[in-house]
Amino acid sequence: MARWQPDARERLQDAALELYATHGFEETTVAEIAQAAGLTERTFFRYFADKREVIFGGQDLFQRTFTDGITSAPEGATPREIVTSAVNSAGGFFSAERRPHSLLRQGVISAHPELQERELLKMGSLAGAIAAALRERGVTEPAATLAAESGVLVFRVSFEQWLTEGNQRSLVEIERDVFAELGALNAAGS
Amino acid sequence: MARWQPDARERLQDAALELYATHGFEETTVAEIAQAAGLTERTFFRYFADKREVIFGGQDLFQRTFTDGITSAPEGATPREIVTSAVNSAGGFFSAERRPHSLLRQGVISAHPELQERELLKMGSLAGAIAAALRERGVTEPAATLAAESGVLVFRVSFEQWLTEGNQRSLVEIERDVFAELGALNAAGS
Repeated sequence: MARWQPDARERLQDAALELYATHGFEETTVAEIAQAAGLTERTFFRYFADKREVIFGGQDLFQRTFTDGITSAPEGATPREIVTSAVNSAGGFFSAERRPHSLLRQGVISAHPELQERELLKMGSLAGAIAAALRERGVTEPAATLAAESGVLVFRVSFEQWLTEGNQRSLVEIERDVFAELGALNAAGS
Repeated sequence: MARWQPDARERLQDAALELYATHGFEETTVAEIAQAAGLTERTFFRYFADKREVIFGGQDLFQRTFTDGITSAPEGATPREIVTSAVNSAGGFFSAERRPHSLLRQGVISAHPELQERELLKMGSLAGAIAAALRERGVTEPAATLAAESGVLVFRVSFEQWLTEGNQRSLVEIERDVFAELGALNAAGS
């Protein structure tokens, strides 16, 4: 039996994203990923069901960064305050050290329409999870869905700005401005 | 050659939706749809590439109901006013007479996760088209994306309410209220 590799998951992920970015997603084989990471195919499949899961496998953890923010919002918080807490919690998770990884991942997704679709569906399911968490806190419909979707929209737009070349601002700072812009855009009489 | 059927498209669509709703989408064959409509399979394929296109084939027309509203918004209109015009234009298209067809279609989609995914992607591509039309009118980013996505969100939530059992209100009336609720939810200090 192969000895336990403490960082196998990260090594496989880094190797895969590099190969997807340079050779293309379709063209890359699991054998190549394993080889580039200095591991076996069998090890790859211990961590990932397929090539796509390398990119989308962290969905649970990702979603939890939002729902943690919902749980930690104070009692009596408004829907907007709860969603802001969720989006800030996710924003804090994507620290400056994560940016290179996120940039590489985003580049691969942008180059492949079928991965873009998958990413969009992931955001849809995130909005559903946030709306459910809001309803659990007593927010009624359609406010729960409107607030959840607004939060995911702010996150998506902010995340893209965060990954822009030369950006020095933190994701949380950007989110604050995008939230304000969304509010101004949708204000009555605007 | 078969004689031209002036209403073949609608007959095939109605027959297909009925069968999808009663027998399931996967279980229904093109032969059954053609037979139920009193037409041939060959005629079916003259109008639709496959079974899924019966449900999603109207995407161009659907998108145009929004972009027509963008074109007709007066010069100097704010992003919110332009998007409201787009959403109202689509709202007007879905008249009371269209409701039974929309209800049947929605029921089929709700029962099939893969059709729900396709519908979500359709909404994503609609938001992209609206954002592009806004940029063409001089709206900058991220305002164009935020306004476009807000409009699609309002449409989606309103459309669902419009299809609720017993609803008597027009889609445009519902949209007005949902727009107001979105504005209140995202207002600074709310």
